[in-house]
Amino acid sequence: MQLEFFGTGAGVPGKFRNVSSVVLRLLDEANEVWMFDCGEGTQQQILRSTLKPRKINKIFITHLHGDHIFGLPGLLSSRSFQGGNDDLTIYGPVGIKRYVQTALQVSQTRLAYHIHYVELTSPGVIYEDSQFTVKAAQLDHQIESWGFRVEEHDHPGELMVDKLQEEHIPAGPVYGKLKLGQQVTLADGRTINGQDFIGAPQPGRTVTILGDTRKTANIAALADHADVLVHESTFGKGEAKLAHNYFHSTNIQAAQTADQAQVGRLLLTHISARYTAKMARELQQQAQQIFPRSKVVKDFDVIEIPFQKKE
Amino acid sequence: MQLEFFGTGAGVPGKFRNVSSVVLRLLDEANEVWMFDCGEGTQQQILRSTLKPRKINKIFITHLHGDHIFGLPGLLSSRSFQGGNDDLTIYGPVGIKRYVQTALQVSQTRLAYHIHYVELTSPGVIYEDSQFTVKAAQLDHQIESWGFRVEEHDHPGELMVDKLQEEHIPAGPVYGKLKLGQQVTLADGRTINGQDFIGAPQPGRTVTILGDTRKTANIAALADHADVLVHESTFGKGEAKLAHNYFHSTNIQAAQTADQAQVGRLLLTHISARYTAKMARELQQQAQQIFPRSKVVKDFDVIEIPFQKKE
Repeated sequence: MQLEFFGTGAGVPGKFRNVSSVVLRLLDEANEVWMFDCGEGTQQQILRSTLKPRKINKIFITHLHGDHIFGLPGLLSSRSFQGGNDDLTIYGPVGIKRYVQTALQVSQTRLAYHIHYVELTSPGVIYEDSQFTVKAAQLDHQIESWGFRVEEHDHPGELMVDKLQEEHIPAGPVYGKLKLGQQVTLADGRTINGQDFIGAPQPGRTVTILGDTRKTANIAALADHADVLVHESTFGKGEAKLAHNYFHSTNIQAAQTADQAQVGRLLLTHISARYTAKMARELQQQAQQIFPRSKVVKDFDVIEIPFQKKE
Repeated sequence: MQLEFFGTGAGVPGKFRNVSSVVLRLLDEANEVWMFDCGEGTQQQILRSTLKPRKINKIFITHLHGDHIFGLPGLLSSRSFQGGNDDLTIYGPVGIKRYVQTALQVSQTRLAYHIHYVELTSPGVIYEDSQFTVKAAQLDHQIESWGFRVEEHDHPGELMVDKLQEEHIPAGPVYGKLKLGQQVTLADGRTINGQDFIGAPQPGRTVTILGDTRKTANIAALADHADVLVHESTFGKGEAKLAHNYFHSTNIQAAQTADQAQVGRLLLTHISARYTAKMARELQQQAQQIFPRSKVVKDFDVIEIPFQKKE
C-alpha cells in the first residue's frame, strides 16, 4: 500500500508542481489503484511513473474545482486507448457525472468500459468490500468539498506453524481447520483448539485524504488515528486569516489537526506556486514543530504505508 | 509572425509529444496570439515557453476530439488567474460552446473576461479585420473537422524617401500626402504624383492549419500558395489504406498536397507515439522526396514565417 502523488500544487499548474492528483496503490492488496482527484495533466504525469491507467478502477473526486477535475476526461479516454476495459467507478459531488458525460459526448469518445457514477449526497460509508471500507464527510470550502477515509479491514492472525510443530501436531488438512479457529480431535486422541494457535490479528491501515478545506470539525472523525493524513496546506504560518478568507488551511492548522487526531503521519499537499523549494521546506519545518511526523510532499513522491502494531 | 508548437502528437499524449496545440504568434503585427486546438496539458507546455496566456485572444478548434480540446477549460481558467481580462473568441464546431460552458459551470469557474463563441456551420470567411482574414472549410474526418486559412492583408508599399530626396523634394507634411498616393504641387511649381514614389506592396503571408483529415479536395483552396501549411501526418509511407480507414493522412499524401498547392513550406504534425525520433526523421525524408521543404515538427518548435517577395 503506497500513496503516489502526481500533483501537489494549488489552483493552477506550476513548473514544479502539477495540479491535484494522488493515487492509493493497492496492487499487493487488491491489484487495484484508487485515484483521488485528477487535475489537468495527470495522465501526462502518469507517463513518468510505472502506474498503468488500466489498474485504476475507482476515482474519488473531493470537489469540482478545475484543478481537481480537468484531467478526468483525458485520463478516462487514455485508459480505454491503453487497453483498460474493466468497469470504473467515479465518486464525487453532484455534477461530476454531468461534467464527465458532457466531455465524452461532445468529443464523441467511446470508452471500452462502463463508468458507474456515485454522486455524494450524505456522509458515511460510500464503499465497502471484504478488504476495505471508505467513508466520506463534508469539509468547509467555497464549493462542496469532501474528505475520504479508507479503512483497511484487520487481517486475521496467522496460524502459528512453529508452535504446532513444537507440539508434534503433524501438517495436513487439520491445519486448515485450526486456521479457521475450529476445535479438532487428533488421531492420538488430543483435542486441540485452533484459537490457541492463531497469532494476533494485524490491524488494517487507514488513509485519510481531504479535499480543499478550512479547519473544520468534520476532519476529526475522518482523520482519527489514521496511519496517514493527506491534508491541504495552501497557506503558511501566520496566514490563518488569508486561509479563512480563501476557504483553505495553513500548514499549522493541518499540523494541529494531525496532532489532535493522533495520526501516524501528516502529508502536506496543495502547495502554492508562491512557495519555492526552500520555502516549502520551511512550511514543513513549521508543521514539524507542532507535529513532528509532517512532510510536504512533491510530485512523484511515493509514500509507503506500512502495517503498524497498534495493540 | 511565428508558429509555436505545444503539442505535435496524435490521439494520446506521449512522453515526447503532447496532444495537439499550436499558436500563431502575431505579437509584432497585432500584439495578439491565436491558438489552434488545445489538447490536455497545453497550459503546462506554455509554462515552458515565453508565451503569456493573456495574449491569446482567439482560439480556433479544428474538431472536438479530446486530444484537441481537453486542455481548453484549464487554459481559460489560468488565463483569468494570470491577469487576462480581454475578451476572447472561440471558433469551432457546434458543441464547443456546450463543452466549455459545462466545464466552467460545473467547476464554478468565474472568468475575469468574456468569451464569445463562433460555432462554425458553413465554410468561408469566419473572421476579418484590417490586417487579417480567416477562412474555414470542412475536411474529411470521423467527426466534423475544419481547416483554417489565415491571410495577412498585403502591406502597402513604403514611401521611397531616398528617391524623394534625390529629386530635392523637402521633407514635411507633403510626404504624408505622397505616401497616400496623392498628387501634390510643390512650392517650386512642380507637380508630383505620390504613386511614383511608393514601392511595391509587400504581399501578406498566408498560414494554413488543418485539423485531422483524410486527403480531400477542400484542402486545395485552403492551402493554395500558402507560405506555410500545417498538415497532420498520422501515418507513414505505405499506410494510405490504414490512414483512410482511420480518417487520417500519410506523410506522402500531405507532401503531395503541399506540392500541388505550391505552398512555401510544409509542417507535418500529429505524429503518432509509434514513431521514435529516428522514425520521425524518416517520415520527414520520405515527405521531402515529394516536397523538399517538408519538416516534421516537434513540441516547442518555433517556426518563423518571413515575408516573401511573390511578384
